[in-house]
Amino acid sequence: MNIPNTRMFSSDNIAPVHPKVMKALQDINVNHCIAYGEDPYSESAIKKFKEIFGDNIDVYFVFNGTAANVLSIANITNTYNSVICSEVCHLNLDECGAPEKYTGCKLIPLPTPDGKIRVEQFHKYMFSFGFEHQSQPKVITITQTSVYGTVYAIDEIKKITGFAHKNNMLVHMDGARISNAAVALNCGFKEMTVDAGVDVLSFGMTKNGLMYGEAVVFFDKKMSENFKYIRKQGSQLASKMRYIAVQYETILSNNLWHENAKKANAMAKLLFEKIKDFKEIKVTQKVEANAVFAVLPAEVIEKIQKEAFFYIWDDTKSEIRWMTSFDTTEEDIENFVKVLRKYLK
Amino acid sequence: MNIPNTRMFSSDNIAPVHPKVMKALQDINVNHCIAYGEDPYSESAIKKFKEIFGDNIDVYFVFNGTAANVLSIANITNTYNSVICSEVCHLNLDECGAPEKYTGCKLIPLPTPDGKIRVEQFHKYMFSFGFEHQSQPKVITITQTSVYGTVYAIDEIKKITGFAHKNNMLVHMDGARISNAAVALNCGFKEMTVDAGVDVLSFGMTKNGLMYGEAVVFFDKKMSENFKYIRKQGSQLASKMRYIAVQYETILSNNLWHENAKKANAMAKLLFEKIKDFKEIKVTQKVEANAVFAVLPAEVIEKIQKEAFFYIWDDTKSEIRWMTSFDTTEEDIENFVKVLRKYLK
Amino acid sequence: MNIPNTRMFSSDNIAPVHPKVMKALQDINVNHCIAYGEDPYSESAIKKFKEIFGDNIDVYFVFNGTAANVLSIANITNTYNSVICSEVCHLNLDECGAPEKYTGCKLIPLPTPDGKIRVEQFHKYMFSFGFEHQSQPKVITITQTSVYGTVYAIDEIKKITGFAHKNNMLVHMDGARISNAAVALNCGFKEMTVDAGVDVLSFGMTKNGLMYGEAVVFFDKKMSENFKYIRKQGSQLASKMRYIAVQYETILSNNLWHENAKKANAMAKLLFEKIKDFKEIKVTQKVEANAVFAVLPAEVIEKIQKEAFFYIWDDTKSEIRWMTSFDTTEEDIENFVKVLRKYLK
Amino acid sequence: MNIPNTRMFSSDNIAPVHPKVMKALQDINVNHCIAYGEDPYSESAIKKFKEIFGDNIDVYFVFNGTAANVLSIANITNTYNSVICSEVCHLNLDECGAPEKYTGCKLIPLPTPDGKIRVEQFHKYMFSFGFEHQSQPKVITITQTSVYGTVYAIDEIKKITGFAHKNNMLVHMDGARISNAAVALNCGFKEMTVDAGVDVLSFGMTKNGLMYGEAVVFFDKKMSENFKYIRKQGSQLASKMRYIAVQYETILSNNLWHENAKKANAMAKLLFEKIKDFKEIKVTQKVEANAVFAVLPAEVIEKIQKEAFFYIWDDTKSEIRWMTSFDTTEEDIENFVKVLRKYLK
Repeated sequence: MNIPNTRMFSSDNIAPVHPKVMKALQDINVNHCIAYGEDPYSESAIKKFKEIFGDNIDVYFVFNGTAANVLSIANITNTYNSVICSEVCHLNLDECGAPEKYTGCKLIPLPTPDGKIRVEQFHKYMFSFGFEHQSQPKVITITQTSVYGTVYAIDEIKKITGFAHKNNMLVHMDGARISNAAVALNCGFKEMTVDAGVDVLSFGMTKNGLMYGEAVVFFDKKMSENFKYIRKQGSQLASKMRYIAVQYETILSNNLWHENAKKANAMAKLLFEKIKDFKEIKVTQKVEANAVFAVLPAEVIEKIQKEAFFYIWDDTKSEIRWMTSFDTTEEDIENFVKVLRKYLK
Repeated sequence: MNIPNTRMFSSDNIAPVHPKVMKALQDINVNHCIAYGEDPYSESAIKKFKEIFGDNIDVYFVFNGTAANVLSIANITNTYNSVICSEVCHLNLDECGAPEKYTGCKLIPLPTPDGKIRVEQFHKYMFSFGFEHQSQPKVITITQTSVYGTVYAIDEIKKITGFAHKNNMLVHMDGARISNAAVALNCGFKEMTVDAGVDVLSFGMTKNGLMYGEAVVFFDKKMSENFKYIRKQGSQLASKMRYIAVQYETILSNNLWHENAKKANAMAKLLFEKIKDFKEIKVTQKVEANAVFAVLPAEVIEKIQKEAFFYIWDDTKSEIRWMTSFDTTEEDIENFVKVLRKYLK
Repeated sequence: MNIPNTRMFSSDNIAPVHPKVMKALQDINVNHCIAYGEDPYSESAIKKFKEIFGDNIDVYFVFNGTAANVLSIANITNTYNSVICSEVCHLNLDECGAPEKYTGCKLIPLPTPDGKIRVEQFHKYMFSFGFEHQSQPKVITITQTSVYGTVYAIDEIKKITGFAHKNNMLVHMDGARISNAAVALNCGFKEMTVDAGVDVLSFGMTKNGLMYGEAVVFFDKKMSENFKYIRKQGSQLASKMRYIAVQYETILSNNLWHENAKKANAMAKLLFEKIKDFKEIKVTQKVEANAVFAVLPAEVIEKIQKEAFFYIWDDTKSEIRWMTSFDTTEEDIENFVKVLRKYLK
Repeated sequence: MNIPNTRMFSSDNIAPVHPKVMKALQDINVNHCIAYGEDPYSESAIKKFKEIFGDNIDVYFVFNGTAANVLSIANITNTYNSVICSEVCHLNLDECGAPEKYTGCKLIPLPTPDGKIRVEQFHKYMFSFGFEHQSQPKVITITQTSVYGTVYAIDEIKKITGFAHKNNMLVHMDGARISNAAVALNCGFKEMTVDAGVDVLSFGMTKNGLMYGEAVVFFDKKMSENFKYIRKQGSQLASKMRYIAVQYETILSNNLWHENAKKANAMAKLLFEKIKDFKEIKVTQKVEANAVFAVLPAEVIEKIQKEAFFYIWDDTKSEIRWMTSFDTTEEDIENFVKVLRKYLK
């Protein structure tokens, strides 16, 4: 098959697998190995997680981010609970109702101009406690980075987790792009998760160089004693688990995750720098990680998409999204800016 | 990491990825590629499916066999339907209730000494039609090969599908080991599925050499027009789909699936030939594919497991299961028979 | 037991059963009668429904309004659908997540100052069609009267149903207080439901004089062919159905429903007239049916509640709700106004 | 409406409401009364329950028996649990899959010739504990009286609850006909429930003289702290709760429940005595409560049904079921025996 040399800005999931990850997959591809996660590769990967997050964690691999979000929330809720979230978060907007179907919970979507939700928005839902007519608030979920590519500061996270815990609620973090956030905040994973009070993390690396797989990390082992049944019943127990485990071990070793995310973030920044003075482009969100949101003249969007594909974010406003990934190159950016220049005058 | 040279007979999922499949993964690991299955690799893989099954099919990749079973059945049922199955099939016994949780349907488990179910067992459930107090029978699901490693003859399948269709029911086949069945029956996939009246197939290859991924094949496009939503809501839409697609394309090309399954079946047969005269071993099922079921003296089981791991199937009867896979070697069998001999005097 | 002569304004469900309805229950309380709705009383009641709504309907009795809402929506959706509704409607706010748990659908709650939703709010959700990442819009549900006691004009309903049908969606009406709306609009049930394009109706009468029971009315028989299974599986098939049927037959006969609702509406109007000039009371919604919403000085609310109970609607604004019912008397109003006067100086 | 003087043996739910219960409904039908169970009638009824079962109970009213079964089991399970039951129990056979849909659990139906299940049948499912591939056994449910009208002796119940508790499981009793069992065993409700180790009871009285309503009784308050949300989300919170409460209070007072059940049981016994010597009738189950199961010549069944309706239990064997109720009279039996005589020569 001829492999077309395509470059896009549609998402960070269009990148290939990082070569070191691919090599690791190949290296372990010999001999027999017990299935379903009882293998030495899984054990070794989990050790790596504990180096990062500390010992009082439970780690479970699943296949993808939707599953990590849905099953981790199922694990800490009953069907009569509600989950407070941003209106535009993946869980609410882009999982085709998976959370409702699988957990039975009500999502309470909060409006937000920058993708981040604030404590001030939560108060009015706290009147439901104990009132059987209404879903009982149990989880606040935040997305790091947000879908707009903005980043919660550690203090912002602490304010949310403090509020949650004071109200007997738990905090879930959708960390599909947590590496990009860590680079943006110049901190490690621990500072903005368990140290900031987060209870459960969807710890995603597929957008940062893996082939597939996602990790659910519980920051308190008591919380997860039955999660193995939830994972299995959720169709998310991989038989050949070693191939997920080794990917995580690889990306978490030798700072590979950091290097990849740093590259992606830098390319978004570069793109922003090069277009910020275009009069026809209005950047709509702060460029803090690896996304650039912007409003373009409606009539050129399709033409530009044909040269390097990207998604329209909001049809009604001609707002588009450009994502960079670990393998975006400076040349990619320069070529794309040329394309922009061509159609924008 | 030191990779232990382990050999086991616990399942066919303990084998590594077939080297040709691994190579294919590596070969496509360049450039950008649109996510979620809109890519040329998925297109090409689906073309291969159509060469095998004919044009009137719809193919959807998911992550694993549980998902393929559960979502394909969800797609053709309402929650008030029932699903007739074997008591020992994976769907009933080994999916931690995933079918009930996800589809809402009732499973009707039928007893069976050899893992296969028969038309004669279905009649008594046909009185439920139209009676709102009872779940409405809608699907019969059969497993090829059965969990006991036995194989439905094509005529047996036709009898079941004929009965089902006469009663406005549909037939699902769990083909987690369909390659082993095809080799056993010396036929292709088409003869024992769409040509035999099967409506939906979980078309599994992970036990035959893939890393991950499973395909759901609908043998009538009208049936599946909304399956894409069911897959997404079921947390089974892979972002980097190309890596599932290329595995399927590879295994279905150049008869690789056949070669692998033939090897696995041959090794089970060899094992059976070598042990059938052991007085202490009572083989309990016909060895038609890649499984050997046998009763052993209770006191030796654990000792033998330590030398080459396998599962106890039925604790109450000291019945065990040995599975062979595409990478089981004659040497593996010989070594194992030596172990058996050692403990069985 | 001593029966306290309590008068309240907390809801219209605090009223007793209308004496004519109670008498009807007693009248049929003899002899044997086949269960589950195959009885002559159910047949006769359904005839009454057809006189009102026309012949192309299907009627199913369930136990209460939550069930009517949830099961009727389950019947016309798949789990991957979404349901557009008002943020404050009963379905979204006061059913403890029953719709999500039972239908699996996502609710899309729209903000609304007066309890009614408008076509202009729907457009942005129409971009989801065909995009598997997002729940597929399928139902718009409106509440008549709204939870704020406001009433959709027939033209407003037609605008919504027209929009829905143009987009292959269906319209459900929660008619828990449909009698009060009919009185307010001075029309019959048919004009504002099937004639206005509504597809399914939760036809409630418990707030208008019944003891229990609710009717789901489908305005197209094709829509409901499997609803009997959904009702049974939803734990909503009453064995002694005759006692629900006869209540409906009674309330729908001799204009009893109209007389009751007219009384309730008149009493709300009377209350409004008597308080509208209180400087300390700010009425917050138009009084169109049998509810009065108002902001009171926070410090008097509890005192007034002790004399005649009612609910606080919005704690953060000291907004309360007063409901009148078919058995509210002018004396009740006068006594209550005296209480108000006492505490409001 | 002309009320036909029909007499049937199809079920005990074809009887009317007991006149004393109807009178109680009427007696409380005045004034306003807070909704949703906060009323004095509910309080008073629950006091009656505590007189019967002791103080450490929680009582929740729902609408019907299916709901009581499904929601009580939902309350004590997670979706990955399994529920061991008789193959012919109502939960498994006659609730259209409500348990699977609502609880997500797997039912494990055990064969039983007399409707009762035994400890010996449970052992083989105990191997699933801790094994994530299989639903985790959590509840054993028994039906008292069984659907065959047979009765668990108190010692039989104790054996089951002892086994369950030893295995960290709970026991649910479906007491749709618990009054008939109490009469048969000549004991009270307490001896065969909480005193015998039962954890949760569906305490049914609709088949013994109520109009509607069912009570869920938890024999440990800790078990039920969140049940109010489950009931509400399950569409089973009655607004005008007082009308359920007062029915229970009435039937549980002055031994009315006992008198009714005694009458029903006596009539079944009378029927049995009168037919036991018919050569053409083969009674298939012990007549211990208010049911008679028998095989009749196939060709006469329809003719007899036309004179006094009853259900065919098993089409394949011409087995029918006759149920008596509290209002079955000796004259009813005599007339029916005449009919039998007519058609059986």
